[in-house]
Amino acid sequence: MDDRRSDEGWMVFPIGVIRSPFTSHTGTPVQPALAGDDAQGTVEVFEPFAEGLADTEGFERIWLICWLDRAGPVRMKVVPYLDTTERGLFATRAPSRPNPIGISAVRLLRREGHLLHVSQLDLLDGTPLLDIKPYAPAIDVFPIGRGGWLADRISPGNRTADGRFEPPSP
Amino acid sequence: MDDRRSDEGWMVFPIGVIRSPFTSHTGTPVQPALAGDDAQGTVEVFEPFAEGLADTEGFERIWLICWLDRAGPVRMKVVPYLDTTERGLFATRAPSRPNPIGISAVRLLRREGHLLHVSQLDLLDGTPLLDIKPYAPAIDVFPIGRGGWLADRISPGNRTADGRFEPPSP
Repeated sequence: MDDRRSDEGWMVFPIGVIRSPFTSHTGTPVQPALAGDDAQGTVEVFEPFAEGLADTEGFERIWLICWLDRAGPVRMKVVPYLDTTERGLFATRAPSRPNPIGISAVRLLRREGHLLHVSQLDLLDGTPLLDIKPYAPAIDVFPIGRGGWLADRISPGNRTADGRFEPPSP
Repeated sequence: MDDRRSDEGWMVFPIGVIRSPFTSHTGTPVQPALAGDDAQGTVEVFEPFAEGLADTEGFERIWLICWLDRAGPVRMKVVPYLDTTERGLFATRAPSRPNPIGISAVRLLRREGHLLHVSQLDLLDGTPLLDIKPYAPAIDVFPIGRGGWLADRISPGNRTADGRFEPPSP
């Protein structure tokens, strides 16, 4: 992958795009686990990569690795959506990060050629897709004793985002 | 994040580096879930980002989002490490991907300033770190009925990688 190398890092490029009912941070589910089955959308994979979707239909859930293109300025301390206390950025899933890469384990409803119909979607319409990986209990599920500040912060009242991680208005 | 935009995509850059006992694909654990507690290493986070590590120590496990800099040529069909059958690339966790971004949920043993001591590591020494996220059962663990081809392929005999996804020799 040395051909992607530059002085500062590496280039990533879209292999597809997310089609979603959500167009602004406010009201978008914070995480797939907090999104309903009605939060449905489509993952459109571009033609050169469509062949790589074979066998994905066997999986109930897939990871969407995306470029969070509408994330705001990066700060090393943030008050995350699910909390009222300032936390170190890397102890949160806030979208505004040095490399704004999101990982979303959405539910795969069905595949239709290069289109993946998904639910429990937490991504904005038009979000660039960088990668897809299968979600599998044998490699993604771990028994956890210490769940940090996230252990007791999920409640029915805090399932959607607000504008706190948006870029400043122009 | 429009300042990272180019004609083809976006720039990612390292916020740290992985220090690991593994120096070639062959013999490196395939996944954190298949790595032992003796597969230990250190995540060195560069100084400008160290402040963002606050509160990570509360989490038993963290996601390391990395640039898989030694992944070989991309193919849309691969025989993954844990299988003997060709699969669509996006139904596998093979390292050779259009955007070679890895997600590894490693065990966090302790934090020492900008250093994170981890176990169950599945990354090569020197792998560039792009992001860290907390692993939390409430958002990362899902009950799964259909686990695809990965559902029955994990055995004591296939826990480490071989050379199949290495770049061709120069």
